Amino acid sequence: MSSQTVKPEISTTPFPASKKIYVKGKIHPVSVAMREISLSGEYKVEGKSVSSVTVYDTSGAYTDPNIEIDIKKGLEPIRKQWILERNDTEELSEVSSKFAQSQQANGTIEPELRFPNEPKPRKATTGKIVTQMHYAKKGIVTPEMEYVAIRENQRYEEWKDLCKQHAGMNWGAALRKGAITPEFVRDEIAKGRAIIPANINHPEAEPMIIGRNFLVKINANIGNSAVRSGIAEEVEKAVWACRWGADTIMDLSTGEHIHQTREWIVRNSPVPVGTVPIYQALEKVDGVAEDLTWEIYRDTLIEQAEQGVDYFTIHAGVLLRYIQLTAKRTTGIVSRGGSILAKWCLSHHQENFLYTHFDEICEILKAYDVGVSLGDGLRPGSLADANDHAQFSELRTLGELTNVAWQHDVQVMIEGPGHIPIHLIKENVEKELEECYEAPFYTLGPLTTDIAPGYDHITSAIGAANIGWYGCAMLCYVTPKEHLGLPNKEDVREGVIAYKIAAHAADLGKGHPGAQFRDNILSQARFKFNWQDQFNLSLDPEKAKDFHEKTLVKRPDEVT
Amino acid sequence: MSSQTVKPEISTTPFPASKKIYVKGKIHPVSVAMREISLSGEYKVEGKSVSSVTVYDTSGAYTDPNIEIDIKKGLEPIRKQWILERNDTEELSEVSSKFAQSQQANGTIEPELRFPNEPKPRKATTGKIVTQMHYAKKGIVTPEMEYVAIRENQRYEEWKDLCKQHAGMNWGAALRKGAITPEFVRDEIAKGRAIIPANINHPEAEPMIIGRNFLVKINANIGNSAVRSGIAEEVEKAVWACRWGADTIMDLSTGEHIHQTREWIVRNSPVPVGTVPIYQALEKVDGVAEDLTWEIYRDTLIEQAEQGVDYFTIHAGVLLRYIQLTAKRTTGIVSRGGSILAKWCLSHHQENFLYTHFDEICEILKAYDVGVSLGDGLRPGSLADANDHAQFSELRTLGELTNVAWQHDVQVMIEGPGHIPIHLIKENVEKELEECYEAPFYTLGPLTTDIAPGYDHITSAIGAANIGWYGCAMLCYVTPKEHLGLPNKEDVREGVIAYKIAAHAADLGKGHPGAQFRDNILSQARFKFNWQDQFNLSLDPEKAKDFHEKTLVKRPDEVT
Repeated sequence: MSSQTVKPEISTTPFPASKKIYVKGKIHPVSVAMREISLSGEYKVEGKSVSSVTVYDTSGAYTDPNIEIDIKKGLEPIRKQWILERNDTEELSEVSSKFAQSQQANGTIEPELRFPNEPKPRKATTGKIVTQMHYAKKGIVTPEMEYVAIRENQRYEEWKDLCKQHAGMNWGAALRKGAITPEFVRDEIAKGRAIIPANINHPEAEPMIIGRNFLVKINANIGNSAVRSGIAEEVEKAVWACRWGADTIMDLSTGEHIHQTREWIVRNSPVPVGTVPIYQALEKVDGVAEDLTWEIYRDTLIEQAEQGVDYFTIHAGVLLRYIQLTAKRTTGIVSRGGSILAKWCLSHHQENFLYTHFDEICEILKAYDVGVSLGDGLRPGSLADANDHAQFSELRTLGELTNVAWQHDVQVMIEGPGHIPIHLIKENVEKELEECYEAPFYTLGPLTTDIAPGYDHITSAIGAANIGWYGCAMLCYVTPKEHLGLPNKEDVREGVIAYKIAAHAADLGKGHPGAQFRDNILSQARFKFNWQDQFNLSLDPEKAKDFHEKTLVKRPDEVT
Repeated sequence: MSSQTVKPEISTTPFPASKKIYVKGKIHPVSVAMREISLSGEYKVEGKSVSSVTVYDTSGAYTDPNIEIDIKKGLEPIRKQWILERNDTEELSEVSSKFAQSQQANGTIEPELRFPNEPKPRKATTGKIVTQMHYAKKGIVTPEMEYVAIRENQRYEEWKDLCKQHAGMNWGAALRKGAITPEFVRDEIAKGRAIIPANINHPEAEPMIIGRNFLVKINANIGNSAVRSGIAEEVEKAVWACRWGADTIMDLSTGEHIHQTREWIVRNSPVPVGTVPIYQALEKVDGVAEDLTWEIYRDTLIEQAEQGVDYFTIHAGVLLRYIQLTAKRTTGIVSRGGSILAKWCLSHHQENFLYTHFDEICEILKAYDVGVSLGDGLRPGSLADANDHAQFSELRTLGELTNVAWQHDVQVMIEGPGHIPIHLIKENVEKELEECYEAPFYTLGPLTTDIAPGYDHITSAIGAANIGWYGCAMLCYVTPKEHLGLPNKEDVREGVIAYKIAAHAADLGKGHPGAQFRDNILSQARFKFNWQDQFNLSLDPEKAKDFHEKTLVKRPDEVT
């Protein structure tokens, strides 16, 4: 790879008619980024004028023309001071993981592949726990908590009287009736009903919250593969996903230079980054699942935790005795992590080492505040296998592990399926809430039919909207290429927008305070044929405008 | 327009690995087209082999390589003999509508624009009622009824033991537990819970049924506009929509030669054709709504009924006193038909002439068996207006009109919204079933958020899947260009597939017998990495294959 490929070609254009604003905290010196869309037309609600709409903004500094972007420097570490002031962490003199050490010493890696001036890792000082849950349980409202409270509200207090909306139906959630307060955030985190994935080694990320009583979030998977893409392209994929609305990204990279790629992504990601560490551990044993060991996995956790990964998917619920439950399935085990662990368990005839070492895993996570996303290794890969004994057995074990993690003050979410017919979706949420004590649910889709490869962003957006409405906290996107190949940038955009739609449909269904404001003003613009405002208020202004301009019919009264 | 533009460029390629089969009736000499997809791999269910999957086929003769297509001749009138044998209709010596007569006499219309050898119209002989509902109430199982029973089953009796599927949740519908029988079809039609749109002047259409206890259907809107397209392009649009799965099409053409365009479409459409006659009536008064009269509208109904239109959208529920209920709405009246009639009512300060003449309308419809789709002229055009007093007031009137139509033995369905947040969708179905006595519900979407122009096939597929699951019988598609411009062919395909997904997700949710079979076999193919079978079983084999082949990663074990 030449240095040219690292040269950034990063999407930085601000959205049309949009301005980045920063709302200051009242408790802490936080400065919360939002996007203010200004309106060209006149809009009134109950006689009062509306001149702008403020929206949630995941795009980070990239859309702020006042900030110079240099992916070789990475983003501003906005949380660094908050972390230092807590005085419970220390900077390490070198990375702790043996693999990371060997990578640093490896002279065959081209210098251009390495992120310049890698920051030194931080870790909790001995005996300290540095998780947001730990602080929350102690009654401490951290800057991160105030940040997410302000962020969730989008200046709701300023415009709430202008937003008339339907009372929602929230299936027993504990949504706020008005603005979200820092104290509400703290309380939800202390109860384990929400998490703020915020590794102390990823101070560049803008804090965000995942929980049933907050806005529904979406995740976008990105990742290179042996056959494609350079590092700059990977960074751009992350930036691109965030631009369109990804609340977190999961880096599922495989292949060479996975360690270096991750460093570039984390340093340049404005949103939390998740990974599945077993993927990299498997590469370290040349793809032979049987050769995996706890030591190799443990070293991988530390390696990634010190790079700043904010949450790990850990398939600790794939127990030896559950594997046989998948024998009669139509599609067996489709989770990659699940397959790897099933192979390991069967070949050794031993219990899953992620389960047996779960306490030690938590010890590592709590020293960096890495959240655990308990993976559903036995999720159904087809409607036929939905809601079966294997799936729900694993879910029960995830509930048991949730309690273990919480005893360590480790933040937890629970991964869910997958492929589920529409009428069986609700049972997934109900069981998850019950078995896992209301820990946030994080699902892939679910896809509501298996017969539409090429359109699985749609088959799954249907399921995602429903499961989000029922109480799922974060929706892992699916792109049109699901089951068929690797997504390109356009696929990522299609997937992200489909999931923003699903998440927003869910927020509206739940009656999240203020959720309908943007819809209301866009509808007014539409009714007035104010095309520019309609485009600017939409999730994808470029596409809306492009579609409109490509048609030959124009109304004489349209504002251009 | 030159004769060259009428030269057919019609999509006739059969689907891959697919063969058109014809299943014979047992009561009547019907021959029901289906598509059999043969499998290259080995699939077993409970030890028994599956070598093919038979699927519902809306594509008509166009995908049968044994049938020669000539759009100047039109499709084979498969129902002609059935209609003749009922001996209750007569061939008219000329068209009855004055407008149609003047079109025929108009020498300025280029001969190439006219469909060659227009068939003579048929009409019920005096005093006769020729609707499927009329026969059903008399206990007669028509060939159309047997046809749709066979068609719905897709040879279910042959493979039912091979299809394990989830019990559905059907919200009180009366789905069959096993195969659908002709007698069940008759009974549902007699009760008004289902309709077979089947104008005696459209004998080319393959009978299909719309009702809550049958497969969920989808409609695609097509239509020219002054600025685009010739007649061949319009015919191809219809063929194209049917190819991907449209169960009915609505011809919303406006502009010049609307009469001639419709003739071409009807003669070449394998599915029922719906229209909104007020659109054409308005053109006859040069777009001035105030100038509309009952006489002009009546003549338009007859004109279109004698061409073979299978169902009319009639906005007879937009009552004068309801119009003021829309005054405080965010988006007023967005239905085009609704706006036209509101304008007429207000300018004349008279009751909607479609309401006051509804009995006479039914007299016309029952002489041709044109179904009435009672239009929702006051449907909400934004989430803000969902489920409001205006909408539900009109719905109550539609219920009243349903009873009137049924007294005439006219087949009825009820149109529904529109823009509805996910949690308010169910109320729409419940109210419709109650107020309209379980007449089939036919909804546009609904869109579950207003903020995603450019992606409204997705915002609405979410709503469509839900409303279909709750009991809506037919889903009117929305394309990605909704609100922005006229759809092109790719948009039509995207819209149709999104709606096939929604309809199928609904069938699976309801637990329609056999609905899961295709999913099960496709999932097996996917699990075996049998790519060809996965593509061939999918809703859009071309796109699935194309997406797969565009990626560089191939597994060594894949079947090509």
